[in-house]
Amino acid sequence: MAASPIEFWYSVGSTYSYLTVMRITELCAARGVTAVWQAFQVRDIMMEIGNRPFAGKPVKMAYMRRDMERRAAMYGMPIAVPAPYPLTEMDLANRLAILGRQEGWQEAYTTESYRKWFQHGVEPGMEPGLSETLTAIGRDPAETIAKANGDAMVQTLNDATQRARDLGIFGSPTFVVDGELFWADDRLEDAISWCLNGAVERD
Amino acid sequence: MAASPIEFWYSVGSTYSYLTVMRITELCAARGVTAVWQAFQVRDIMMEIGNRPFAGKPVKMAYMRRDMERRAAMYGMPIAVPAPYPLTEMDLANRLAILGRQEGWQEAYTTESYRKWFQHGVEPGMEPGLSETLTAIGRDPAETIAKANGDAMVQTLNDATQRARDLGIFGSPTFVVDGELFWADDRLEDAISWCLNGAVERD
Repeated sequence: MAASPIEFWYSVGSTYSYLTVMRITELCAARGVTAVWQAFQVRDIMMEIGNRPFAGKPVKMAYMRRDMERRAAMYGMPIAVPAPYPLTEMDLANRLAILGRQEGWQEAYTTESYRKWFQHGVEPGMEPGLSETLTAIGRDPAETIAKANGDAMVQTLNDATQRARDLGIFGSPTFVVDGELFWADDRLEDAISWCLNGAVERD
Repeated sequence: MAASPIEFWYSVGSTYSYLTVMRITELCAARGVTAVWQAFQVRDIMMEIGNRPFAGKPVKMAYMRRDMERRAAMYGMPIAVPAPYPLTEMDLANRLAILGRQEGWQEAYTTESYRKWFQHGVEPGMEPGLSETLTAIGRDPAETIAKANGDAMVQTLNDATQRARDLGIFGSPTFVVDGELFWADDRLEDAISWCLNGAVERD
């Protein structure tokens, strides 16, 4: 029987998700596991439950940046921190990811957005970087942004966020395997292990 | 040149610290690294910066318990969750750890407290479990508790907490190596790697 897929729930705007976005495809392929990318709006859920890990917490913010820097080095991934945070246009950035899911360019858009953000300091969802990103992945910027700003995409993102809420998701990235939740980039290996073994085991 | 020691900063009362307390001694010995245990009062710092990860957040609380359960299984460690949380007598529990540091029984006290807490549901700092713990490690309960309740130990714990604050510590467990901070049980391997290599590298 094939292993269950990993649902990769994320929001463009989550910092640590950079580490996942840049490694999940290769890692899952190497382990024979399928990852299904699903954007949602984690900020809505975090505000609802009063979970604000970095806002007004400069000590935690500084730690997060340093921890990301060290982990990126471990993964062999370039990183330039601090990157702009929080995002001004986080809703748009995620409506685009949702639209990309429908049209088949979600992974390309997300990866390019994160690459620009954490390697070149270009904030997702903001011009001129946004149009450059869309052009780089072969989309027409004006047309694509207009579609992402339509009511349908607002509703689709809200629906995805509601599904995340129903699953008990409270942060990004979260991996879901057979109803089992794994939160944070450092639990990706746990999620893959769960896929393959039905338990968290050491590599 | 010998590797720098790992300072293991923790508070009795932190849930995830269970995973560290039960494995750090053996793991560090196997890697040729020295761990120096240092209790402090993380709750003071968390309240100051408004960092309350679980209070009023039942979804995160449920996740934490499940994640701990899975990780404990990975480590081959028994665990019975949910365990009592938060602790009623967290100050006393940590003044005892600080006193134990001065008198040479800190690790035994901390380990026995966590073992009872996460394997048998016995809340640290509360009777009758507290006296049982002290007896189990060869201390006289009444005498030891009286000493831990003295002004000197209140001050010593406050001083340790101030040193933690000055280091930029905001959670438990935190590992400090040459001024580099690593937060959470899942960063223990990163801290050991930093000791040995001056970088976070994969095992």
